[in-house]
Amino acid sequence: MHGSRIDYIAGLDSRGFLFGPSLAQELGLGCLLIRKRGKLPGPTVWASYALEYGKAELEIQRDALEPGQKVVVVDDLLATGGTMHAACELLGRLQAEVLECVSLVELTSLQGREKLGSVPFFSLLQYD
Amino acid sequence: MHGSRIDYIAGLDSRGFLFGPSLAQELGLGCLLIRKRGKLPGPTVWASYALEYGKAELEIQRDALEPGQKVVVVDDLLATGGTMHAACELLGRLQAEVLECVSLVELTSLQGREKLGSVPFFSLLQYD
Repeated sequence: MHGSRIDYIAGLDSRGFLFGPSLAQELGLGCLLIRKRGKLPGPTVWASYALEYGKAELEIQRDALEPGQKVVVVDDLLATGGTMHAACELLGRLQAEVLECVSLVELTSLQGREKLGSVPFFSLLQYD
Repeated sequence: MHGSRIDYIAGLDSRGFLFGPSLAQELGLGCLLIRKRGKLPGPTVWASYALEYGKAELEIQRDALEPGQKVVVVDDLLATGGTMHAACELLGRLQAEVLECVSLVELTSLQGREKLGSVPFFSLLQYD
């Protein structure tokens, strides 16, 4: 997937949870949880992002990882990229390095991967 | 886990999604999704259940399985058993047979397994 050593897979609430743990297990890594806001105990950081209608918020525990650790983010679907971008923002605020974002499906016409800037993105299936 | 042939693992939204697919993959089975209400397209059935504060609703697609198919339900935690009971109710309404319910953790003092009646329940870790 990527030449650098990966420290963690991060799965996004909730359909990223369907794939993140399996990928982490296959790679012998732990799986971090990035959740919808209001689900996690203890100190957290959170970020808002726009949905097609309205907005939503993602949250991560402040001690989920150490600064400099390398993460691959997993979700089921990349549409406009808002969710994935918010996940990258959270990980950046914890000073983690996002090596790559991956999804099972990518809706290419929505150009979500452009929202991820310089972060590499990989999808298994692409639909227009 | 159970002598009868299992047709599907059912994972409960959203932390059951962390374990259901891995178990399904290990057993060479598919994983059904039982979701919080309002997430699934197409015809569905849904059930309400009580939480410690307030209530919540689970939903499943009406064509998720065929009558008579055998299911093992997976969640992360059994507390009062309300969520797991609602999942069993939904599967029963689709005329599926719940062979067993399983969770990673069981909070035994809340006696949630009693709410499941005659459905066998298994947990890996028990806390008082």
